[in-house]
Amino acid sequence: MDVSNELAIGIDIGGTNTKYGIVNHRGEILQKGEIKTEQYPAIGTFIDALYEKLNPVIKSLNKKNVLGIGIGAPNGNFYKGTIEYAPNLKWKGIIPLAKLMTDKFDLPAALTNDANAAAVGEMMYGAARGMRDFIMMTLGTGVGSGIVANGELILGHDGFAGELGHTIVVPGGRLHDGTGMHGSLEVYASATGVARTAVEMMAQFNDESLLKKYSTKEIDSRIVYECAVKGDVLAKKVYSYTGKILGEALANFVMFSSPEAIILFGGLTKAGDMIMKPTRENMEKNLLPIFQNKVKLIFSELKESDAAILGASALVWEMKK
Amino acid sequence: MDVSNELAIGIDIGGTNTKYGIVNHRGEILQKGEIKTEQYPAIGTFIDALYEKLNPVIKSLNKKNVLGIGIGAPNGNFYKGTIEYAPNLKWKGIIPLAKLMTDKFDLPAALTNDANAAAVGEMMYGAARGMRDFIMMTLGTGVGSGIVANGELILGHDGFAGELGHTIVVPGGRLHDGTGMHGSLEVYASATGVARTAVEMMAQFNDESLLKKYSTKEIDSRIVYECAVKGDVLAKKVYSYTGKILGEALANFVMFSSPEAIILFGGLTKAGDMIMKPTRENMEKNLLPIFQNKVKLIFSELKESDAAILGASALVWEMKK
Repeated sequence: MDVSNELAIGIDIGGTNTKYGIVNHRGEILQKGEIKTEQYPAIGTFIDALYEKLNPVIKSLNKKNVLGIGIGAPNGNFYKGTIEYAPNLKWKGIIPLAKLMTDKFDLPAALTNDANAAAVGEMMYGAARGMRDFIMMTLGTGVGSGIVANGELILGHDGFAGELGHTIVVPGGRLHDGTGMHGSLEVYASATGVARTAVEMMAQFNDESLLKKYSTKEIDSRIVYECAVKGDVLAKKVYSYTGKILGEALANFVMFSSPEAIILFGGLTKAGDMIMKPTRENMEKNLLPIFQNKVKLIFSELKESDAAILGASALVWEMKK
Repeated sequence: MDVSNELAIGIDIGGTNTKYGIVNHRGEILQKGEIKTEQYPAIGTFIDALYEKLNPVIKSLNKKNVLGIGIGAPNGNFYKGTIEYAPNLKWKGIIPLAKLMTDKFDLPAALTNDANAAAVGEMMYGAARGMRDFIMMTLGTGVGSGIVANGELILGHDGFAGELGHTIVVPGGRLHDGTGMHGSLEVYASATGVARTAVEMMAQFNDESLLKKYSTKEIDSRIVYECAVKGDVLAKKVYSYTGKILGEALANFVMFSSPEAIILFGGLTKAGDMIMKPTRENMEKNLLPIFQNKVKLIFSELKESDAAILGASALVWEMKK
C-alpha cells in the first residue's frame, strides 16, 4: 500500500469541546470538526455523536486508508486505553474508551493524556522537532505536561506520569478546589490561577487600576490580559507573579530531566513577553550553574487546536510500528 | 571468548574515598580496595595511585578478560566522559577523566555521576531488578539521585539530569553554602541537614533532651541517630521533620515520572522506620489519588560501598552492546 495515502484520526477530548481531525503523514489536517463534550453525559451517546460526524468522512476518504484512531484525553492512560477519574469530564470512574471506540468504528484505537498528545504533536510537527529531551507545559484552564526523555514519552510504570500541574510549588499555599491540595502549580500558572492572583492583588493594591472596574466575580484571565496590554501596572504585576511561580517550578523540572527545551503551550502564552520574561528570569535564578543559560524556553509553534489532534493522530503511526 | 570470564572494573569516586572493585557478570566483586581521594589534589597523581593499585590485579586476572573501566563520580557526565565543577572534589573545572583513564590503563572507560551509577547497580543486582521505572535517592553527606524511566537512565540532553537534591522544596528556606540556593532538598534530607535540623530544634525545645549534652558544633547525624535510638523525643522529632520534607519532595517526583518504586540509599537510611514512616506518610498525603498507595518506598538492597562499584562496572557491559 502507498504510505502517502495513509491517514490517521486524531481526537482531542477536553472538558468543554472535543476536536477531531483526519491527518496524513505530513501532519496536514485534511478535515476537522468538533462536538460539545459537555452535551454527552453518557459515554455511549458521546461515541455515537462522534461516529455520526466521522463515519461519512471516513467513508468518503476510502476507509482502508484510515489506519486507526488516536485520542488525547485528560487522565488518559496509554497502557490501559482508559480515562480514569478525570475531574473535568462528566464520565465518572474508569472509561475503557479505546475499546469502546474500536467496537464502534472497527478501527484500532490508542489513547494518552491530552498533554502527552500535545508533546508528541510538538515533537513530530512543531518546535520540538528533532529533540530527544523536552518538557511540554500546557497552560490553559488547568496545567498539564508531557515529558519526553531519551526520545520517548515518559509514561511511568502505570501510564500516569507527567502530572506537573499538581506538583506543590508553594507549600501550604492556595487550595486547589478539585484536588484538595495546597499550593500546586495549577492554582497559580493556569487561567483560573491568573484570575485568583488578580483578585488577591487587587485587595492589597491602593493605586488606580483598570482591574478595579470589575467585580471580583467578573475578573478572569481575559480581563487581566486586556488590562495588561493597555499597560495597567497591577495587571502586569499579576503576570510577573505568575511567571515567578512558574519559573521556580520549571527550575525544579529542569534539575529532574535536564531537557533541551521547555515548550509553553495554551492560553496563558498569549501574554507573550509579559509571562515569558519573569518565567525565564526566575527559572534561571533557581538553577544550579551547570543548568543555567542552556534550556530553551519557547512557545509552541503549533496552533493550539491543532497540536493535540496532531499528537493524538501520531499514536496511530506508533501503533503501526 | 567465554563471557563468563569477562570482568569489568568499577570505580566509585567520592569526596573522601575512592573505592574500586573488579566485577564479573554475576555482580560478584572479586577484589576491591580504596584510596583517599583527598590525598591527590592533582588528577594525574590520583590516576597514578589508582594504576599502582589496580594494575597488578588486572595482570593477575589476565588482562584480556578485563573489558573496561566504569566510573561513578560527582558531577560526572556520561556523554563527555568528564567531571565538571564538582563542589566536593579538589579537581576544579572540567576533568576529562574517561580519556585520562583510557590513556593510562589502555582500556575503554565510561563515566556517569555517582547516583546514576548506584541506580544502575540497584537495577542490575538490587531492589530494582526487573523494574523499568524507578528513582534512586542517595541520602548521604549530600542528596543525589538516579532516575530510570522506560528502562533507561534519564541523562538529559547534556548528561546532567537527576539533580533532585538541588530542587527547591522550601522556597526561601535554609541557605545551601555550596550552591547559594535557599531551601533545596539537600539542606534538609542529608546528614548535614539532619544535624542542622537538630541544632535548630534544640534552640526551641524547652524539655530535657540527650542532645543538649552536646554543643551545637558537636552535633552531627551520628549523634542524632544514637540519641533517637535511645528514645530521645527531640532526636526522633528531627527524623519526623526530615521525613516530612523528604516525603513532600518525593510526592513531587512521583507526579513527574510515576515510578514503580523509590529506593532510598545511603547513611540516612540507617535510621530505618524513624525516617521511613514520616517520609511515606508525607509522600502519600501530597499525592493525587491516582498515585496513592502504588509507589513502593523501599531501602536499597545493596551494601552502600558495593552499589556504586557495581553500577559503575555495569557501564562497561553497556559499552560492549
